[in-house]
Amino acid sequence: MTHTDSALPRAPDSEFEDHEALGEDYALTPAFVEKVVDAADDGDGLRLRGLLEDLHPADVADLMGFLTAEHRMVVVQWLPPDLLADTLPELDDGIREEVLERVPHLTLAEALQELDSDDAAAVVEEMEDDQRERVLAAMPEVDRAAIESSLGYEEESAGRLMQREFMAAPQFWNVGDTIDHVRAQGEELPELFFDIYVVDPLNRPIGGVPISRLLRSARAVPLSELMEPVNEITVDQDQEEVAYIFEKYHLISAPVVDAAGRLVGQVTVDDIVNIIQEENREDILRLAGVADEDRGSSVVEIVRGRVPWLAINLGTAVLGAAVISFFEATIEQIVALAVLMPIVSAIGGNAGTQALTVTVRALATRELNSSNAVRTFWRELIVGLANGLILAPLIGVAAGLWAQDVAIGLVIGTAMVLNLLIAATVGVLTPITLSKLKFDPAVSSAVFVTATTDFFGFLIFLGLATIVLL
Amino acid sequence: MTHTDSALPRAPDSEFEDHEALGEDYALTPAFVEKVVDAADDGDGLRLRGLLEDLHPADVADLMGFLTAEHRMVVVQWLPPDLLADTLPELDDGIREEVLERVPHLTLAEALQELDSDDAAAVVEEMEDDQRERVLAAMPEVDRAAIESSLGYEEESAGRLMQREFMAAPQFWNVGDTIDHVRAQGEELPELFFDIYVVDPLNRPIGGVPISRLLRSARAVPLSELMEPVNEITVDQDQEEVAYIFEKYHLISAPVVDAAGRLVGQVTVDDIVNIIQEENREDILRLAGVADEDRGSSVVEIVRGRVPWLAINLGTAVLGAAVISFFEATIEQIVALAVLMPIVSAIGGNAGTQALTVTVRALATRELNSSNAVRTFWRELIVGLANGLILAPLIGVAAGLWAQDVAIGLVIGTAMVLNLLIAATVGVLTPITLSKLKFDPAVSSAVFVTATTDFFGFLIFLGLATIVLL
Repeated sequence: MTHTDSALPRAPDSEFEDHEALGEDYALTPAFVEKVVDAADDGDGLRLRGLLEDLHPADVADLMGFLTAEHRMVVVQWLPPDLLADTLPELDDGIREEVLERVPHLTLAEALQELDSDDAAAVVEEMEDDQRERVLAAMPEVDRAAIESSLGYEEESAGRLMQREFMAAPQFWNVGDTIDHVRAQGEELPELFFDIYVVDPLNRPIGGVPISRLLRSARAVPLSELMEPVNEITVDQDQEEVAYIFEKYHLISAPVVDAAGRLVGQVTVDDIVNIIQEENREDILRLAGVADEDRGSSVVEIVRGRVPWLAINLGTAVLGAAVISFFEATIEQIVALAVLMPIVSAIGGNAGTQALTVTVRALATRELNSSNAVRTFWRELIVGLANGLILAPLIGVAAGLWAQDVAIGLVIGTAMVLNLLIAATVGVLTPITLSKLKFDPAVSSAVFVTATTDFFGFLIFLGLATIVLL
Repeated sequence: MTHTDSALPRAPDSEFEDHEALGEDYALTPAFVEKVVDAADDGDGLRLRGLLEDLHPADVADLMGFLTAEHRMVVVQWLPPDLLADTLPELDDGIREEVLERVPHLTLAEALQELDSDDAAAVVEEMEDDQRERVLAAMPEVDRAAIESSLGYEEESAGRLMQREFMAAPQFWNVGDTIDHVRAQGEELPELFFDIYVVDPLNRPIGGVPISRLLRSARAVPLSELMEPVNEITVDQDQEEVAYIFEKYHLISAPVVDAAGRLVGQVTVDDIVNIIQEENREDILRLAGVADEDRGSSVVEIVRGRVPWLAINLGTAVLGAAVISFFEATIEQIVALAVLMPIVSAIGGNAGTQALTVTVRALATRELNSSNAVRTFWRELIVGLANGLILAPLIGVAAGLWAQDVAIGLVIGTAMVLNLLIAATVGVLTPITLSKLKFDPAVSSAVFVTATTDFFGFLIFLGLATIVLL
């Protein structure tokens, strides 16, 4: 998204604000949402427009998330066209898809012309094929070409992410030349930019000058004296990698080059913030076994995203049940074992999930690689042992007292220590292995870890009990 | 952190790079880490310094995370002082604490003078009281005052986060006045800035001018014509709220004002990226029951952070066991129930965690409030019912066939549907309730949700079985 605002446009106590859309926490107030719902129910278009027209596009997108699909459609009808345009890139995927289906293609074509190339492309890529064709056909050649070329890059690549508008200067210019050029060419340049990219005669970036540095230098200073080393993003780089580079080096903007090293665009930090949030959202949801879903997802889409994981879990739970059934004879003799066995598996599952989550997070932030993998593994194993030695006496004594049988206490305590060691092992090794095999370590790790701790929890506890108690 | 780099300083194929510290993915290579470890083991200080001196501070911090505590201390000894200074704010908390303990206070005092006030304060706040006093005493008055004033604000507030260096201009200036001032005052200004804040005679911000807009305007244009509405962050605002505002409105920088509305500092987006990552990290770890820990945490610290949650879980598991023990007589008669009961609780726990995670995430991104809470709840309930109606026949038929008893199939199927409805209910209501009560919805939600689904899973399954089968 490139309509970066350098200043905060609407806010609770701003003099520019004429109604109370936002609460003190800068989120839309339920009272405001209520007003919009009322106006939509009454079909009161003028009142709706009055409520909507002063909102920031980000707040309109937010509002849409709070509404039902029916109310969203009424709101879309009454949104001023330029506000609709700015709102489209801000919407949740599911809601954008729904909105795109309802807006006439000529309105869309007009709206998209208002956007920077990266935002327009991000919207167009969500369209169905026939709609995309009709919308693009209704746009001026130059805008269409920019969008088509952007869509030519892979999804989630720097090519898709970049904006084609940037400020470049030849290496022999000085500060004065550059400022004069910016003043003359103002309209061609992006609305906001943060760095000037210095290029060689083949249009390859050789350095960057932050514009605050340009501003503080005398007109006669050559750019080559001000520039710092710059390292290019390539068009085919994955957006997650781009985000990592921005985050690590605290970048505000970076030049994007094609395969020949020529400057073709730039990525700015505001896009990166979105990507970081997106990647974090994916990680946290995947760990819980939830496919991507948002407020615009239908119940069918949500169920389709969640049931497979539950079904796999059902399969692993059956595996756990199979272990138990193997010991049916033991349980028949000592029913207390049936009472106690879920304790062993539950704590194992929780400890495994702790180790797993820490490991997944460390992999995602690249804090874990082969330099420290072995050390991390040993550390988790020691943590598992320590957890076990702390918790086992608790449950051992409690179970022994309850069952009036010291042996049962010893069995459950021992089983717990062993299962916590297994939890630490699978908790660390599962995501590391998935990552080595180039799979997303967050996906399906959790199901495997809890399946393993259930399986071994039952096996060790009931197995030990069979040996010791019978 | 305000030593924002506008360009990427070191990278794999950069001409400025003279050794292969970074891999293609911009992360340190295990081979480079190995070289550092070897040099540290050999006590070869010159070689160490050669390896380290060209690294970006972010990469030094990264390197420290991959080393053992012993190797870290050797590296710290050989880091050039200015690189040490820039590295301090980049370190993981646990590692920074450890490094601070080992560096002489005069070295620290010198290092801190190199940093912007917010970075220096962030480092000083980690020190033990007596070290802090000695380090501050060794610093020049002006630097000490800046740090002390920063530490006067609450932790995690905008006051802590802001840098005191910014560029402000009176409202009657034009573009030319502003550029001339920047050129003259260059040294006083922050190294990088992105917006010029226009202030009234009482030093209250009345607007902001992105410097790219300044650059493209003629010298005679008054700032008042260029400025956009700006909304201030107040010094006591929580950093999470500041991050939300930046993210929502795609801000690059924002002015910070004191209680009287006077401009006292600015927050820049690069700090926000760190905060977003920190908050996400907290959420994901807390959902798994892990207190804050990082690569610098000792085993004791890690165990101390994880055992409480496991202990609580042990308590809830005992509660589940109590339910089972209530049905001991039933299990004695039909041992198959002991085999099947963990299936009902496991699937309930997983479905509950799915609903919980989605809800926690929606609360964190403020996508869920009282406007859509009821709708969200109903949606999850319908999803839970749908999940149940899909999965219950599977397990019902399988269990019925295995036990050679249709009634057992019916009981487990019914129990599963009911437990999935309970899972949806607690999965949504637990985080919403915690959030209403101003608790962090991520903390301890998971333990409560799985405790509930275990409890009711056992209760419904064994209860139904007792009624139907006996």
